[in-house]
Amino acid sequence: MRTEIATLGEFGLIRHLTEGIELKNESSKYGVGDDAAVLSYPADREVLITTDLLLEGVHFDLTYVPLKHLGYKSAVVNFSDIYAMNGTPRQITVSLGLSKRFSVEDMEALYTGIRLACEEYGVDIVGGDTTSSLTGLTISITCIGDVERGKAVYRNGAHETDLVCVSGDLGAAYMGLQLLEREKLALKDADGDVQPDFAGREYLLERQLKPEARRDIIQKLREAGVQPTAMMDISDGLSSELLHICTQSKVGCRIYEEHIPLDYQTAVMAEELNMNVTTCALNGGEDYELLFTVPIADHEKVAEMEGVKLIGHITKPELGCALITRDGQEFELKAQGWNHLGE
Amino acid sequence: MRTEIATLGEFGLIRHLTEGIELKNESSKYGVGDDAAVLSYPADREVLITTDLLLEGVHFDLTYVPLKHLGYKSAVVNFSDIYAMNGTPRQITVSLGLSKRFSVEDMEALYTGIRLACEEYGVDIVGGDTTSSLTGLTISITCIGDVERGKAVYRNGAHETDLVCVSGDLGAAYMGLQLLEREKLALKDADGDVQPDFAGREYLLERQLKPEARRDIIQKLREAGVQPTAMMDISDGLSSELLHICTQSKVGCRIYEEHIPLDYQTAVMAEELNMNVTTCALNGGEDYELLFTVPIADHEKVAEMEGVKLIGHITKPELGCALITRDGQEFELKAQGWNHLGE
Repeated sequence: MRTEIATLGEFGLIRHLTEGIELKNESSKYGVGDDAAVLSYPADREVLITTDLLLEGVHFDLTYVPLKHLGYKSAVVNFSDIYAMNGTPRQITVSLGLSKRFSVEDMEALYTGIRLACEEYGVDIVGGDTTSSLTGLTISITCIGDVERGKAVYRNGAHETDLVCVSGDLGAAYMGLQLLEREKLALKDADGDVQPDFAGREYLLERQLKPEARRDIIQKLREAGVQPTAMMDISDGLSSELLHICTQSKVGCRIYEEHIPLDYQTAVMAEELNMNVTTCALNGGEDYELLFTVPIADHEKVAEMEGVKLIGHITKPELGCALITRDGQEFELKAQGWNHLGE
Repeated sequence: MRTEIATLGEFGLIRHLTEGIELKNESSKYGVGDDAAVLSYPADREVLITTDLLLEGVHFDLTYVPLKHLGYKSAVVNFSDIYAMNGTPRQITVSLGLSKRFSVEDMEALYTGIRLACEEYGVDIVGGDTTSSLTGLTISITCIGDVERGKAVYRNGAHETDLVCVSGDLGAAYMGLQLLEREKLALKDADGDVQPDFAGREYLLERQLKPEARRDIIQKLREAGVQPTAMMDISDGLSSELLHICTQSKVGCRIYEEHIPLDYQTAVMAEELNMNVTTCALNGGEDYELLFTVPIADHEKVAEMEGVKLIGHITKPELGCALITRDGQEFELKAQGWNHLGE
């Protein structure tokens, strides 16, 4: 079934998509339906704002990304930015630009994913904008969160001797993308009903199509009484993010190849594609894991924390940023993350 | 001179465009450069959030809109939404999607306009996102503002016997658009160096290309001790907005054709184009004037307020929403505002 968006119109579509939304956070006073949403935060909280613009053909390919997953991911990547400040996401606004190709049912699927992510993470949809587009789908999400006053973690707080930590494992989302791109090509060349074979690769696909934000790690750090000195989420690849932290903190670093966390499927897929798995982990991007530094005094606490890996340490700035390989060589870290502006 | 954006890259471009930005509002704690901006509002303020998505070819036509003006307008229309809640805009985030057609100089022009608007209205740029686009220019701006706790004005508070007021005059921005579209066609047909003749039409162009948000009216209302019962800004046309207020407030209204504020140039241009000037004022859109209702007890205060016009009153819901023409006829108000989704 396909219902044209024109049958509902802009306001009708927004009403339809936001129907039944209940505001759950105490800080959400008034949501969709006025010139602006109204929020109310207590004086002991600071407010965090982050925003992401996703464009069809640049950030996602609808030939293999289901709209529901796209909605979920679009919301989660914003939550991830709020966690990366040591905060809690509370509200989002959702702006959509839609070409005539999209039906009301398509937008329902997209919104189902967004609403699911919001439910999982306890976030309220409080506003947005919907408009037609001449070309494809545009998604712009802004997320508002909060953090205890003085507890926000920036990129610029890393100190010499701090430990460098990452959550989860790296490179899998990038391998998932490679897998999807390969199957897309294969299906284009094949005639008839060939079904893609993703058996045994489910983890890679999940990491690419349905990433999660590491709320659990923020929670664990808080429970352990560890306040990171610097933190960010890994969206453009470990190298690029680590360079951001080191540049902004005016320090150097050493990380160790052997400590970079990898999943088995990532390694198998890299091997199959004849790619260096460390390179994938360093530059792959879209992992949405947390990269953070902690004082060396917290060594024991983070060393025994499940889902967290120590990968190196912060140095004086003169030493630069380098990777120590398994055979003891030193390579300067370079940002080769995804650069959508064509570097 | 044309510098390709690729020579700077995403992070380089953002650094370049946001260079020298100083945060001026006390509530702006940390701006561009981290996973999220950090804001801090005192407990006696509520936080307002509004967002707008503008797409090339749908919301603006770069053949006649200079990028600097576009930047200015993109910011101001968001400020207007915050004023329409009785608030003060404090911060914006700016997300841009850019095709290869655009150079660093183009983005400088756009940002010059955005920064100028921010300076004029005392707003801080605290973040954003910049990415490549396959097609044209995408601008997504989110504005954060604040209002004294309990003083936000919604669309749903209008009561029977309240007075309906508008600021400024209506229809001029729409006439400006007609004028620009007409000249665009004329120049396309003409051969050689024909220059468009806008003499005597400057006001219409200014209303279309460089609208202002009515901060002054909010200030005057506050000084006069008038708290509107309902308010919104007129972006889609008076009819459409008045229907929003009446629907959400569950009331009806009567407005009077003879009281709708019009500028002389608007009337002349409508005449020239053989259009009904009242229709232009009712449905034109993009005026960014304020539409609000006040208790009848405030009659005297608003009647003598410069830049504010009383155009009618709120009725019981059974009476519906109608315009009384100069010759005493009653016409039901209909929303024929700009609907970008093809109604």
